[in-house]
Amino acid sequence: MDTRLRAGERLTEVPVPQDAMLHFIGRIRTPWAERKDCPRQGRLDGPECRLEVAAPWQEALLGIGEYAHLDILYWLDRARRDLVVQNPGNDGRRYFGTFALRSPQRPNPIGLSRVRLERMEGTTLLVRGLDCLDGTPLIDIKPVTCEFTPKAPPKS
Amino acid sequence: MDTRLRAGERLTEVPVPQDAMLHFIGRIRTPWAERKDCPRQGRLDGPECRLEVAAPWQEALLGIGEYAHLDILYWLDRARRDLVVQNPGNDGRRYFGTFALRSPQRPNPIGLSRVRLERMEGTTLLVRGLDCLDGTPLIDIKPVTCEFTPKAPPKS
Repeated sequence: MDTRLRAGERLTEVPVPQDAMLHFIGRIRTPWAERKDCPRQGRLDGPECRLEVAAPWQEALLGIGEYAHLDILYWLDRARRDLVVQNPGNDGRRYFGTFALRSPQRPNPIGLSRVRLERMEGTTLLVRGLDCLDGTPLIDIKPVTCEFTPKAPPKS
Repeated sequence: MDTRLRAGERLTEVPVPQDAMLHFIGRIRTPWAERKDCPRQGRLDGPECRLEVAAPWQEALLGIGEYAHLDILYWLDRARRDLVVQNPGNDGRRYFGTFALRSPQRPNPIGLSRVRLERMEGTTLLVRGLDCLDGTPLIDIKPVTCEFTPKAPPKS
């Protein structure tokens, strides 16, 4: 991890994070082995990537083939978590708060990409639209809201 | 938490989650005090809710007012995490894998809603589009991809 701060970037003092724990449900395979190679945002016409879902979660994929697009959450495990103001262009001019960016550097470094589901091979999903490093831990898979309707009757 | 299983719902055996830790960055205030009152999905014309960002993250909001819509991540702290196949309608008929649902019951119970930013009051964001309980822990705030452009030059 490149932990060097850029001029004018600011940190916060945060306690050791210990509010809740995540459990990785698989791994993501992408063509990008180093951070400098990753695109700044995923594209739906980008290269095919693999979501390798771990065996205990195999049944949780039941019915996922109904969806053309999925929201993917993943853990950006090389990010620093204390940056509050960032200078993405490293130009000493334009500064942005962390929550006004989609930078990996954030208090809870969770990446979120909307991907297209191309096909499945067993418990592996082939998708397009990711931007993360090869080997990134997978956290969650959800149908996108615009294709999803609640499966229980509306509440009164 | 209602931990009762419905007929035919299936669990997985998962290890104690310990792969990564989250740090709550604030609290969400909504009109819904009990799970039965929460809507099944948020609506952009739903009631105004408050994202109360904790003081250490105040500067991280710099520039967020540029965005009309935000992706909000939050921790569904009453969910059970071992369900792999669910029967959302409790009708004993239609079963779905957890990753083919947007149910709160999932291995990493992270809620994701796309909200409209109405206005800000100090470090509190007033938004519409949430569906979660009053008091839900806040995890992350991101500009939505369709309004966001990377703030650094493209990579070669």
